[in-house]
Amino acid sequence: MSPVDDYYPIECAFCKISAAYQPSSSSPVPISPDPDLVSPQCHLILSTPLVLAFLDIMPIARGHILITTRKHYTKLSDLQASSKHGDWLSKQSANEVRATSRALGEWMPVVSRALCKVTGIEDWNVVQNNGERAAQVVPHIHFHLILEGQRTARKDHGMLKSWKVFGRGSREDLDDEEGAELAGLLRAAIKEEVEEQDSAEKDKPKL
Amino acid sequence: MSPVDDYYPIECAFCKISAAYQPSSSSPVPISPDPDLVSPQCHLILSTPLVLAFLDIMPIARGHILITTRKHYTKLSDLQASSKHGDWLSKQSANEVRATSRALGEWMPVVSRALCKVTGIEDWNVVQNNGERAAQVVPHIHFHLILEGQRTARKDHGMLKSWKVFGRGSREDLDDEEGAELAGLLRAAIKEEVEEQDSAEKDKPKL
Repeated sequence: MSPVDDYYPIECAFCKISAAYQPSSSSPVPISPDPDLVSPQCHLILSTPLVLAFLDIMPIARGHILITTRKHYTKLSDLQASSKHGDWLSKQSANEVRATSRALGEWMPVVSRALCKVTGIEDWNVVQNNGERAAQVVPHIHFHLILEGQRTARKDHGMLKSWKVFGRGSREDLDDEEGAELAGLLRAAIKEEVEEQDSAEKDKPKL
Repeated sequence: MSPVDDYYPIECAFCKISAAYQPSSSSPVPISPDPDLVSPQCHLILSTPLVLAFLDIMPIARGHILITTRKHYTKLSDLQASSKHGDWLSKQSANEVRATSRALGEWMPVVSRALCKVTGIEDWNVVQNNGERAAQVVPHIHFHLILEGQRTARKDHGMLKSWKVFGRGSREDLDDEEGAELAGLLRAAIKEEVEEQDSAEKDKPKL
């Protein structure tokens, strides 16, 4: 690494996405987000103050989605809410970390349902890699949602070994047009569910 | 399936564990839980009203942990909080589902940290399979935590293909003595973190 890298480090790819796509106050589902705000394109489907979801640019399977944290945390273990310091700032930070962990848990089923609904496929894997040896490529927490039976057609698929698949170029670039169409369908499916929840909230009896 | 199976269906293995190990009001970390409350033994490390964690009885790697929901949900998509009915019961059920999703997200980093701390290994995968075709074996939501470089020494490891590893007998039975020892260390590590959080809560300035 040259000394210049210390001053201008390569930015985290997911932090760039997080910075480019700010959350909206009106809905967790972005309305027609511009894929060209970052390069390569980003097909965003969810954008909350704590988490984002978008299509993987090198999908293992059609509909390969990533769910990430808005803030930069490298591994799942970096979501550490405990603090020995009782001061206000530490407390705020601990609350934010806890809310982020919860948001990951809360959105995973919602995004999964949207993926199943849009593709009609109901078997899928959720995979989250921590550390280079565990095949983590981008050092920013992300959960992969990968549909079964939708692997991209590459000759070397029979050779895939365990999770190592992630680091070894057995993936194809996402077609931007296809990505944009799929992302639109996924946003609509998530939006529908979010609105359903909102309307159930409104209907609840006032006690 | 014989008609008898309709009346006496095979119980879900994780529901059996959930029923045998009730949450305690004093701590999410069980104190010396008896592994023999179920058969095969269960080495429990976390037991809250919403989620449980225990060692996999057929570990892919040393320290293979499962985090499950206390209630029975087959797939992640079954954690569906939305409801078109605005009645009180539906609302309660939606709240519980949402709290369960959040609890999964909240405990995953905590249990991961305990695993890294106890084993000294800092690279690991989180895997959650949905549906038979995605190699889900027990039809009750569970997240696997699997340490890298700790695969059990079976000859057929070089043949493992993708996540299919889960369904294909490339795993060894957990040694009960080893399991008990490891579970004890994991409980202590989780307890330490939970107590740290509690003490930070108590120390916070009263505003």
